[in-house]
Amino acid sequence: MGSMTHLFGGIEGGGTKFICAVGTSPEDIRRQTRISTTTPEETLGAAIAFFQDAERDLGRLSALGVACFGPLDPNPASPTFGFILPTTKPGWSNVDVVGILRSAYDLPIGFDTDVNGAALGELTWGAAQGLDTFIYLTIGTGIGGGLMANGKLVHGLLHPEMGHIRIPHDKERDPYEGWCPFHKDCFEGLASGPALEARWGQKAETLPPNHPAWELEAHYIALALANYMVTLSPQRIILGGGVGGRADLLPRVRRNVQELLNGYVQSPAITEKIEEYLVPPGLGNRAGTLGAIALAQAVYKNK
Amino acid sequence: MGSMTHLFGGIEGGGTKFICAVGTSPEDIRRQTRISTTTPEETLGAAIAFFQDAERDLGRLSALGVACFGPLDPNPASPTFGFILPTTKPGWSNVDVVGILRSAYDLPIGFDTDVNGAALGELTWGAAQGLDTFIYLTIGTGIGGGLMANGKLVHGLLHPEMGHIRIPHDKERDPYEGWCPFHKDCFEGLASGPALEARWGQKAETLPPNHPAWELEAHYIALALANYMVTLSPQRIILGGGVGGRADLLPRVRRNVQELLNGYVQSPAITEKIEEYLVPPGLGNRAGTLGAIALAQAVYKNK
Repeated sequence: MGSMTHLFGGIEGGGTKFICAVGTSPEDIRRQTRISTTTPEETLGAAIAFFQDAERDLGRLSALGVACFGPLDPNPASPTFGFILPTTKPGWSNVDVVGILRSAYDLPIGFDTDVNGAALGELTWGAAQGLDTFIYLTIGTGIGGGLMANGKLVHGLLHPEMGHIRIPHDKERDPYEGWCPFHKDCFEGLASGPALEARWGQKAETLPPNHPAWELEAHYIALALANYMVTLSPQRIILGGGVGGRADLLPRVRRNVQELLNGYVQSPAITEKIEEYLVPPGLGNRAGTLGAIALAQAVYKNK
Repeated sequence: MGSMTHLFGGIEGGGTKFICAVGTSPEDIRRQTRISTTTPEETLGAAIAFFQDAERDLGRLSALGVACFGPLDPNPASPTFGFILPTTKPGWSNVDVVGILRSAYDLPIGFDTDVNGAALGELTWGAAQGLDTFIYLTIGTGIGGGLMANGKLVHGLLHPEMGHIRIPHDKERDPYEGWCPFHKDCFEGLASGPALEARWGQKAETLPPNHPAWELEAHYIALALANYMVTLSPQRIILGGGVGGRADLLPRVRRNVQELLNGYVQSPAITEKIEEYLVPPGLGNRAGTLGAIALAQAVYKNK
């Protein structure tokens, strides 16, 4: 069999749902399902059953990839590789996700954060093709960023948690104190979906485009992006998620970023062509699921 | 001749002085000089004369490394590789540093930011040995950070400019507006040496350890470091420079970082052993000069 016929399984593990898919590429997803995130036994059990069914009908999988909510341990050399670390999500602290999957499947299993997975998906098939240093940022229920530097996903000590940077918070303009249980008014505490809902008293998706919420939101997002830009010098930033992916938000964010940087980063990519620099995901809302498939392909290649 | 006998030249190019050195390692610097930064012709001319003299007495150099103030173009594939980009430093905008050196020396020439050079020096001989993802941050007249991720210096779009992140600025606690000509109260605008001098009316080095300046300074540094930590997940941060390298400042910064992160990054490296995580340069104030030598060795190895 040629390499084109290898089938891969992907799990996008989120706090409310797990999406499982089997396929080879964005154009060739042969089966997909959505499982509610309840207990680890139930949720991962349903995932295993899905892949077993799929294998019966479609053939053997070559590897599994798991792009999961964190914090987690993505280091294959660590004794807790494949575990979710202590988390505020009830029941999921210290769960050995990879171990549970491996007990059913003797396969190479790739495991990384949801956002690192999405970054790899965007590199493989989406808006980051050909780049070596970029960020995939999602803004929704939470805020997280996946980071690739010099052609490899960055883990470092553990993995990035970009949503938790501190940004200036003008309490006269915005008295809302922020909701992050660890840091109150960090970026996630000020600009994620729950922050918008708490500040304005209605769900983010119901706020109309001309609502003042969005200029403030664009300001906070731009503060964070400008910080990532001077810290990392990414070649591109991909902005997705239920809040971050709003088409009417992106032009405002771009304008705010340029104002904040004020010409300091002397690259035409930012000063002239920012609409090609700060972009939506090429894979739309499938970046996470396809990223999990990409993690499976990567672990298979390096096995 | 074995590789141990290769001689390398290094230039640490700063805004006030250029330090030129010839040697093989921290224990084997055979000659060194200090040149005032005046015009490019004069300063680079004196550097060339120094290396020519050194070669006559010590033997041929195998490569040159230049760790220079920026912004600059470190990308060997770019038409402006080796140039300093438009800068506020009079006379140095668009100077072709590598081209000028190459007109006198037909040698491999490594060229990167002063802080990326220092990071490479710390990796090779200092406090970052064995790591693959870390930051070297210097706080002095300016603030800059060198970044290594996955074992390679990060350039991305251009190179990091970490001193220019925005951090929360409580104007009641600190009414000083900041001096950065681009961003006013970014990190560099609030916490570099000139900011300390402008805020307190005396030079930073004359402020005694019990002066309230230092608790505020530790707070600002910790805000920036906490942001770098969640953005990049570095395995270690090395803090140097005239201000950042003060021995009495480091314990305060560590305590502030732990308070700001509030247990969010679940690694014993931060929660328990932060004194091994946030450290002074292993090479002391020689990181930049030795980093230039390390850049020369790297370009020679990859030539």
